[in-house]
Amino acid sequence: MRRKKSILVAVVGAAAVAGISFGQADNWYPSRWGATDQRGAANRITAAKVLEAKSLMTQGTVYQLGRVYEAAMPMFGTRHFSLRIPQTYGPMGSNRTMYHDEIVSAEIGQVGTQFDGLGHIGVGDLFYNGNDRADFSKGDGLTKLGVENVGPLVTRGVLVDVAAFKGVARLEGGYEITLADLRGALERQRTEVRAGDVVLVHTGWGSLWGTDNAAFAASAPGVGLAAAQFLVEREVVLVGSDTWSTEVVPNPNPELQFPVHQLLIPRNGIYIFENLATEELARERVYEFAFFFAPLKLKGASGSPGNPLAIR
Amino acid sequence: MRRKKSILVAVVGAAAVAGISFGQADNWYPSRWGATDQRGAANRITAAKVLEAKSLMTQGTVYQLGRVYEAAMPMFGTRHFSLRIPQTYGPMGSNRTMYHDEIVSAEIGQVGTQFDGLGHIGVGDLFYNGNDRADFSKGDGLTKLGVENVGPLVTRGVLVDVAAFKGVARLEGGYEITLADLRGALERQRTEVRAGDVVLVHTGWGSLWGTDNAAFAASAPGVGLAAAQFLVEREVVLVGSDTWSTEVVPNPNPELQFPVHQLLIPRNGIYIFENLATEELARERVYEFAFFFAPLKLKGASGSPGNPLAIR
Amino acid sequence: MRRKKSILVAVVGAAAVAGISFGQADNWYPSRWGATDQRGAANRITAAKVLEAKSLMTQGTVYQLGRVYEAAMPMFGTRHFSLRIPQTYGPMGSNRTMYHDEIVSAEIGQVGTQFDGLGHIGVGDLFYNGNDRADFSKGDGLTKLGVENVGPLVTRGVLVDVAAFKGVARLEGGYEITLADLRGALERQRTEVRAGDVVLVHTGWGSLWGTDNAAFAASAPGVGLAAAQFLVEREVVLVGSDTWSTEVVPNPNPELQFPVHQLLIPRNGIYIFENLATEELARERVYEFAFFFAPLKLKGASGSPGNPLAIR
Amino acid sequence: MRRKKSILVAVVGAAAVAGISFGQADNWYPSRWGATDQRGAANRITAAKVLEAKSLMTQGTVYQLGRVYEAAMPMFGTRHFSLRIPQTYGPMGSNRTMYHDEIVSAEIGQVGTQFDGLGHIGVGDLFYNGNDRADFSKGDGLTKLGVENVGPLVTRGVLVDVAAFKGVARLEGGYEITLADLRGALERQRTEVRAGDVVLVHTGWGSLWGTDNAAFAASAPGVGLAAAQFLVEREVVLVGSDTWSTEVVPNPNPELQFPVHQLLIPRNGIYIFENLATEELARERVYEFAFFFAPLKLKGASGSPGNPLAIR
Repeated sequence: MRRKKSILVAVVGAAAVAGISFGQADNWYPSRWGATDQRGAANRITAAKVLEAKSLMTQGTVYQLGRVYEAAMPMFGTRHFSLRIPQTYGPMGSNRTMYHDEIVSAEIGQVGTQFDGLGHIGVGDLFYNGNDRADFSKGDGLTKLGVENVGPLVTRGVLVDVAAFKGVARLEGGYEITLADLRGALERQRTEVRAGDVVLVHTGWGSLWGTDNAAFAASAPGVGLAAAQFLVEREVVLVGSDTWSTEVVPNPNPELQFPVHQLLIPRNGIYIFENLATEELARERVYEFAFFFAPLKLKGASGSPGNPLAIR
Repeated sequence: MRRKKSILVAVVGAAAVAGISFGQADNWYPSRWGATDQRGAANRITAAKVLEAKSLMTQGTVYQLGRVYEAAMPMFGTRHFSLRIPQTYGPMGSNRTMYHDEIVSAEIGQVGTQFDGLGHIGVGDLFYNGNDRADFSKGDGLTKLGVENVGPLVTRGVLVDVAAFKGVARLEGGYEITLADLRGALERQRTEVRAGDVVLVHTGWGSLWGTDNAAFAASAPGVGLAAAQFLVEREVVLVGSDTWSTEVVPNPNPELQFPVHQLLIPRNGIYIFENLATEELARERVYEFAFFFAPLKLKGASGSPGNPLAIR
Repeated sequence: MRRKKSILVAVVGAAAVAGISFGQADNWYPSRWGATDQRGAANRITAAKVLEAKSLMTQGTVYQLGRVYEAAMPMFGTRHFSLRIPQTYGPMGSNRTMYHDEIVSAEIGQVGTQFDGLGHIGVGDLFYNGNDRADFSKGDGLTKLGVENVGPLVTRGVLVDVAAFKGVARLEGGYEITLADLRGALERQRTEVRAGDVVLVHTGWGSLWGTDNAAFAASAPGVGLAAAQFLVEREVVLVGSDTWSTEVVPNPNPELQFPVHQLLIPRNGIYIFENLATEELARERVYEFAFFFAPLKLKGASGSPGNPLAIR
Repeated sequence: MRRKKSILVAVVGAAAVAGISFGQADNWYPSRWGATDQRGAANRITAAKVLEAKSLMTQGTVYQLGRVYEAAMPMFGTRHFSLRIPQTYGPMGSNRTMYHDEIVSAEIGQVGTQFDGLGHIGVGDLFYNGNDRADFSKGDGLTKLGVENVGPLVTRGVLVDVAAFKGVARLEGGYEITLADLRGALERQRTEVRAGDVVLVHTGWGSLWGTDNAAFAASAPGVGLAAAQFLVEREVVLVGSDTWSTEVVPNPNPELQFPVHQLLIPRNGIYIFENLATEELARERVYEFAFFFAPLKLKGASGSPGNPLAIR
């Protein structure tokens, strides 16, 4: 019982810091999509949103938002990415077929461009829909909330160029994107955020990717709790960015660790997409686009690698 | 010199069997996209094709074509897929963040639903654009023809339901889809194949996936050389299927091993997509659709896992 | 509190089944080597035991007790073993050095010939010395009881050929080696078990290794609780066998799962070594020998692969 | 033909640099143990050598020569070592058995303390006994020269403390241990090297392990060609050291890359053991000891991890 109380205090504390109200801290589950739901905000994707996406495909230009996966990527903590090409197999048959495959070992859903599923983040032991990790977190895979449940995310995408709004090429590490920043940036672009949208935040931080990995990984500018709460209220599906965390790290409140992850994923079923290549969209001022992504159906995984597409 | 000659003989032999002509066997490179090209038929994707795809999105219905990745999948030879959930990390901070990631080891681009890149298949030592494997096949990754070069494939997609044309739920293992079958099935559907299209062949074989893995992996119905040559001439981008090979296995000519792979990938730069979930498209008679896929940018990989989307 | 009670009941129940007494069930920790000990029965290895081992090296004949590690091994549950040889690296320098390495993915301490460390097995959440898994079981490795703490096991080794005692080449799967069997087999050989010894039990089950992997893995003859208790009282260091479990599987009491593992490892700090190649020792009637093994110092691992040596 | 000639030139060149003669460069195979041998200098281990080892076990003191394997080890190039503890499995049965295993991905025979087998190093395409890599180097494992063929190495071990001979705690990176150094160090210790011995060279470089990994990996003091040739002529079984290379890196001749590896492994079937923990032996002046090691039988691997033992 004591632990539950301390969670309550922590979450309410975080809310107070952000100047927002979560209401009663222990009311975040069951989810609005029912107590057995495993798809969270993906439920907001409707045929109407798909057709709204379609309507944004005006030029036939396709942008890849995924970065290259390689051992030299910046990675969190002790994660790794190893790819090897075994000796060529063959030749087989009179037509002498030879072939390559690749052997990969990695925290595959949580390195490089990565989509965070609902099994990724907990508030203490409690994950999305109040699932206790003791009940679903198993060695061979999560038995609930696995990323294979998400399904396709085809919808309207919005890029919010906060760096441009702040008049810089790159926000500073540890810079918290405030509610005013988010609103200001959207106003500057004359973009609105709608229910069922995917929102990508351009910070410029991605320019450190592969050029100064140590700096890239040491901190990050990103969405703070109040800005995140705004997106929650707008009923978005996913929040992404060109940083490894999407949210500001370190949090301005030094007692909090990844509170925006908790606000979005377990409490609201909203996905996070990290290490996206948003620079091309920003450069070409593509603030609205059709967004296409479906996680790899990695059974029982917490996340998925990806190469999502933005099309206009 | 002797080896080159034997390749020549083998390829011409394969052509003869199929009743088609490859012209001079050693004329297949440089590619039509130039001697340094690494994207092959992906070059056929134009803004016009993207907009053609758009025009097919009439209902906002999205189909996932990727299957679930798990250790229990049927796999080729000694390949493996291992996913484990490490002990939950955390709690961190006063907000008690906990998190999961996953550790995956697999021939990731060549297990389950898999996209074959241009570095996958060789005619002897020669791969797409005449690249000799000694020049680009390195332990840490292919230094040319890696799947990170492909880019997005957004185009018109076509499902050819050969099983329905033959009046069966599932073609037999080893059944070669002939040119007449392909033409007949297209006619039955009143579907035409256009330059720049993605063509998916439904055989019904996928119904064995997860229900009889041994049978699934032991053989496969699939496209024969003549049907494949027809698709080459139609200038498609990709040929996929609900089997592990797309082409017929074993080949009717017992001396040939995966000759359709050679015809499509190294000789013509056309991609192959295997183990696709085509059954829903077939059931709902979705013969034309918008197709969306971009390989994971796995640097130096021969292929990519995926969950491509078909939308109508 | 309820959980603790149920553990108590279960352990006492197991003891009752075996007709032996564990004394008070909750008295098994702290260990006899102190509350912070991480080496368990390895503490029984003294210089005198090393010199006793030396005295058994009379002929200079060395036996390898490790089996070959390969993907085709029988493995428990969903474990895997994958080894690949990447493309040869080089040539480097005017002397044209080329080299191979290998990329291995496996549950390396728990596949094939495997040494079970003190972090492997728990009685509920409690492991050796009463360590609660919440305190030491971390994603990046066990922070206590890791196999790197064991150190070298050089001591007198004893082979107990129970198959020969029972007059068979191979005991049946599920056959429980009783106390009478163990005593009878030792008497037949005129071998005694001393404090600090390593005891290897030959069942003949190893003849199924690689010849009928499905049968090998489906069950196993092995030590029952009473025979194991005898070895505990003899103060041995390690119990090994030519089966994947060393203990009988399934246990004659269908409610118990791996109770001998619990008796030996967490409760008494005695190690288990599985899938040993004991057949050569049995054939040549090598019942006493010098035993040499040191686990790989895999930081935070539950076990270690190995190729232990028996020398006479 | 041109390639063979260039190998010849390179090897003769290396010999000239070292002031030693390899005789005719293309006479290094077949090996002295026959054209089909796969064990090389392990053939020098006889019962007499085992009993010679026994005679050195005078005190019953055991030294572990293996270092701890962890992700934080210094590693060569892009190699990696990843160990994860999956979620605890269980509880099973009324006795509530729970268990851990570990998932490891690594170039397991070539990271950390590592034993180089005969399939590790080639002179161009030619490996031990003249085996051409095209004939045995396969994606699923080496089909010849795999480390599973080596067998137990139980013999007299010798530590040569070259650092002490030079009067330093640690030789400099790139310092070449000359023939005079080796002889001087042996004389200082009054140790002789005999046929069938294992020779470990203490350089002090190991003190950088874990304290300055970047420096540790950037270069190494080690055996030069002339000192290595001396050990070849003494007919040793294995040469080891407390560095990652055993040989001097970079070689004083900037055109040569790992020539001592070539001299020992392919040309003479002598093994190399790297990253050994020799500091305790050096500190306690244990210059002669019984040496115990058997590679893991990793089928088709180029090397093996290990924790060899020195006993006196």
